[in-house]
Amino acid sequence: MRNATLGLLAGLLVSVAVPAMANDSVLAGQDDPKQWSMQLSNYAGTSYSELDQITKDNVGDLQVAWTFSTGVLRGHEGSPLVIGNVMYVHTPFPNMVYALDLNEDGKILWRYVPEQNPDVIGVMCCDTVYRGLAYADETIFLHQADTTLVALDANTGDVKWSVVNGDPSKGETNTATVTVIRDKVIVGISGGEYGVRGHMTAYNTADGSMVWRAYSTGPDDEMLVDPEATTHLGTPIGADSSLNSWEGDQWQIGGGTTWGWTTYDPELNLIYYGTGNPSTWNPSQRPGDNKWSMTIMARDPDTGMAKWFYQKTPHDEWDYDGVNENLLVDKEIDGEMRKLLVNFDRNGFAYTLDRETGELLVAEKYDPAVNWATHVDMDPESETYGRPQVVAEYSTEQNGEDVNTTGICPAALGTKDQQPSTYSPKTGLFYVPTNHVCMDYEPFRVSYAAGQPYVGATLSMFPAPNSHGGMGNFIAWDALEGEIKWSLPEQFSVWSGALATAGDVVFYGTLEGYLKAVDAETGDELYRFKTPSGVIGNVFTYEHDGKQYVGVLSGIGGWAGIGLAAGLTNATDGLGAVGGYAALSDYTALGGQLTVFSLPN
Amino acid sequence: MRNATLGLLAGLLVSVAVPAMANDSVLAGQDDPKQWSMQLSNYAGTSYSELDQITKDNVGDLQVAWTFSTGVLRGHEGSPLVIGNVMYVHTPFPNMVYALDLNEDGKILWRYVPEQNPDVIGVMCCDTVYRGLAYADETIFLHQADTTLVALDANTGDVKWSVVNGDPSKGETNTATVTVIRDKVIVGISGGEYGVRGHMTAYNTADGSMVWRAYSTGPDDEMLVDPEATTHLGTPIGADSSLNSWEGDQWQIGGGTTWGWTTYDPELNLIYYGTGNPSTWNPSQRPGDNKWSMTIMARDPDTGMAKWFYQKTPHDEWDYDGVNENLLVDKEIDGEMRKLLVNFDRNGFAYTLDRETGELLVAEKYDPAVNWATHVDMDPESETYGRPQVVAEYSTEQNGEDVNTTGICPAALGTKDQQPSTYSPKTGLFYVPTNHVCMDYEPFRVSYAAGQPYVGATLSMFPAPNSHGGMGNFIAWDALEGEIKWSLPEQFSVWSGALATAGDVVFYGTLEGYLKAVDAETGDELYRFKTPSGVIGNVFTYEHDGKQYVGVLSGIGGWAGIGLAAGLTNATDGLGAVGGYAALSDYTALGGQLTVFSLPN
Ligand SMILES: O=C(O)c1cc(C(=O)O)c2c(n1)C(=O)C(=O)c1cc(C(=O)O)[nH]c1-2
Ligand SMILES: O=C(O)c1cc(C(=O)O)c2c(n1)C(=O)C(=O)c1cc(C(=O)O)[nH]c1-2
Repeated sequence: MRNATLGLLAGLLVSVAVPAMANDSVLAGQDDPKQWSMQLSNYAGTSYSELDQITKDNVGDLQVAWTFSTGVLRGHEGSPLVIGNVMYVHTPFPNMVYALDLNEDGKILWRYVPEQNPDVIGVMCCDTVYRGLAYADETIFLHQADTTLVALDANTGDVKWSVVNGDPSKGETNTATVTVIRDKVIVGISGGEYGVRGHMTAYNTADGSMVWRAYSTGPDDEMLVDPEATTHLGTPIGADSSLNSWEGDQWQIGGGTTWGWTTYDPELNLIYYGTGNPSTWNPSQRPGDNKWSMTIMARDPDTGMAKWFYQKTPHDEWDYDGVNENLLVDKEIDGEMRKLLVNFDRNGFAYTLDRETGELLVAEKYDPAVNWATHVDMDPESETYGRPQVVAEYSTEQNGEDVNTTGICPAALGTKDQQPSTYSPKTGLFYVPTNHVCMDYEPFRVSYAAGQPYVGATLSMFPAPNSHGGMGNFIAWDALEGEIKWSLPEQFSVWSGALATAGDVVFYGTLEGYLKAVDAETGDELYRFKTPSGVIGNVFTYEHDGKQYVGVLSGIGGWAGIGLAAGLTNATDGLGAVGGYAALSDYTALGGQLTVFSLPN
Repeated sequence: MRNATLGLLAGLLVSVAVPAMANDSVLAGQDDPKQWSMQLSNYAGTSYSELDQITKDNVGDLQVAWTFSTGVLRGHEGSPLVIGNVMYVHTPFPNMVYALDLNEDGKILWRYVPEQNPDVIGVMCCDTVYRGLAYADETIFLHQADTTLVALDANTGDVKWSVVNGDPSKGETNTATVTVIRDKVIVGISGGEYGVRGHMTAYNTADGSMVWRAYSTGPDDEMLVDPEATTHLGTPIGADSSLNSWEGDQWQIGGGTTWGWTTYDPELNLIYYGTGNPSTWNPSQRPGDNKWSMTIMARDPDTGMAKWFYQKTPHDEWDYDGVNENLLVDKEIDGEMRKLLVNFDRNGFAYTLDRETGELLVAEKYDPAVNWATHVDMDPESETYGRPQVVAEYSTEQNGEDVNTTGICPAALGTKDQQPSTYSPKTGLFYVPTNHVCMDYEPFRVSYAAGQPYVGATLSMFPAPNSHGGMGNFIAWDALEGEIKWSLPEQFSVWSGALATAGDVVFYGTLEGYLKAVDAETGDELYRFKTPSGVIGNVFTYEHDGKQYVGVLSGIGGWAGIGLAAGLTNATDGLGAVGGYAALSDYTALGGQLTVFSLPN
């Protein structure tokens, strides 16, 4: 054993490749619009495709080309990958993988069925979702619900290696996709509702050995920060920045999990991701800013070392996890090209930052209903620079434990949750699937026990009052002006990932089950089709045999659909979502299907 | 309690309606091709539709119009019903019912979710299938797996009454649809693999009270036969016809279950259905003809009294249940119009009988591979009149217990199983989804214990040798000539019900998941579409808002798909089907979806 391990390590030393900008196979994939090689289409996370066979003029003729049932019910998030002539389809727990032969009408080349202890289902906060596979170098990376990270031979489905990232008995689970950068695969962890201490971890793609782990909270060395070099809004974070922002040891069970999307700038060699809510949801139990929960983090993927942080919601009182995708786009500001990062946060503010420095450029509400804060202080000289200005009426901390704070907008699931937005370089606009939901929130004292829910608040949710009555909007956003360009009201939250294409069409799915296509300029609806079940998957596109296809996974679930997915009926169950989305059961039932569309021949 | 019961009975006495020809609402439904008001389209069981908007010339343009996930996996047999603007969709266990509003894109008007003890799954021989709902007089009739018969208000889904027909702890279950005739709902029972003694039972549609029960085996009075008036091939069956054909009390655990389809001739006022295999599958344990297993029965629906029987496979040695649908058509023979009954039996013979008298007119193999019998003796003077002439080599009884009889064709699941055939009055042809599968069969001694499998044979299945390599054919059949007109080879058994329409198109589904449309004259393939999962449901059609739709349930399962459905991998599991259909897992995964097609606008 000892010798074998030594041999492995020795092998590692000689196999270090000359570092390219990123992973060559991933770069090749994102540069070939015929493939869909990453969950968000590219490292920049724009979910944009250069394919333009399907246009705003012909998208109305779209037809269903073929379909595939995954054999699993409950929430289907993420999207399949398309590499060459093979489509890789994942499922929610038990996280099966199918390799489908696109040359043979979707014949199943191989399937991988993990063996997982079903107990993990009990400690997944928001349905048994999984946001999809990653691909690099003939390898499919699967990150199971039980946190087992598996490298599968893309041609055979054989396991190359597997490694365990967390411990479900402590509430550590996984729902996120992973990101491959050069020879590392970077993975997060879920469990903010179980007091899990969040971290990001890099494993070697060759053998699964751990390279680095960066905690979201705790001592500097465990967070991989440099008190002088790591900055927050241009200022060094200083020593013990996290420890100083918590009372006692609360940071050890303080959340800041990393269950969202990671994007990457190969030139700056920085990854970007966000951290989730501080635990518990009862703010009185954790005085302080609770750093670095609710934070956008920019890190070096090779070492894990943090370059800059931006904490969007210090001392969260509403469960506004800061994990949403950070879209990386370059735009001219005042005559100068800037490397930007755009983030549609749960808290209802859309942020535009300089992604090199972490400078805050824009912070505006992207739903007018947002009321918990008046604005974000944009004055660099101010003591509260970069902080949302909380409205006392909606402060669950100020109102105190066992008091029901009513009418907070947005609800805990935010103005946007996991559903990725998209960006079209042709229009320069961001297209954002949003929630238009408010809540009542009553915090209560809770004690920690490993593997037990550590929530400490009772919620109810309802459509934003005095509005169109629905629970969602699909909007187009100008990230420089900080302005909504147009907004399409939806009956339910838009919980699906959107896709913009060079055909000037934007696609998204709805919780009732529609796939919709709208004009990227005007938002006019051009096509709709009722898929088998509610859509919380991300719309994707690929080309095969000269033909463009658009696809999406159906399968109601996720937090919004947890009532249907888990069979809950008590209004405050599902962390308050059951009552809010009760009407969903009038429209759809559980599913798990891929629907693929194309133009007629 | 006593008074309440009396009141009920008194109510019954006064509420007897003037007997119409059949149930008026059912007749109205079958006469309106816009609706799909019965599982097999009409009382005659022809699964034919007069709708002709979709024709052989335009069916190639078919598109998916909308889809619906049932929220249940495993085998989906039968079809939804369409009554007015509402579609009623059923599921396999737990036998949910959805009422979908066709005016509102399939919005769910109501859903009914029965509470059933899941133990029943363990005593269902051939997957948790359910062959669909019945409708009459604003009432939906649901016959659950656990044999609870429920009458639901078609407008609200409220339970009007329910009654229990059998005892799952003894292996009594249900998979069949029910048939409403006037004020009675007629229901069968499953469990031939558990030694269940089969019966047909009529309940009052008004309150669920039992009207009559006719056992398939046993004493004359329990079978509702008249030894003089009930005939077999023109001859009175005589006293104790069943008892005399069994050794001792074996008939009490002797099968003859009634899990197939019931058809009805309103003019003759006769229902037609078949009885299943005698128990056990080890023929040496039950000497005799085992009457009246494997028998077509013609009965008066008002009294249950039998008019005639025809036993197709006396003393079964292969599990060739005789329950397949009896299609009722009128045809000219020798210048005279005859009321015919056509039956494609599991044993590989297609029978044409006079349905008034039970006279046997034609009995020919509808798959040339059939080898267990040379022919059916058609000589009325012969001692073996009407009996298949068994080939000794393939007689599992003659070869004896613990001897593996090899190469028997068809396999136990027959040349056709539950999948209903269709008849087009325009072509005069029958279109039959068939199996092209053979088997090895090794009987062994088994003892009976209530609720335990009572099978007594080990099987393996394989494609018919020296043929096209596939396991199925879709054929057109001339029932007067007893001849195949054309035959389309299929890789797997065609386990879906077929639909013929006035548009000269015949539709069927495949186990890989295709919906196929073929030319009714020539069999040329005109259209195919890959639905989400393997198809074992029946294709159906309806018209809404002036537009013809064709639909089918996907969801791999049934006996052929039991390996996938129940997650079995041992080749001889699933009564031998697991090995035979192992390749199915290369094509499809579990599902439960409705796909509805229409022509483009
Ligand atoms: O704090 C966490 O660790 C954590 C994990 C997850 C998850 O892993 O899905 C969600 C959340 N939080 C959460 O706050 C949330 O709104 C949410 C929605 C969803 C979803 O997939 O619909 N997951 C999660
Ligand atoms: O003897 C019986 O009671 C019984 C019941 C059933 C059933 O209820 O599904 C089947 C069978 N037998 C059977 O022999 C058979 O081939 C079969 C196929 C199927 C199916 O749905 O695919 N069920 C049944």
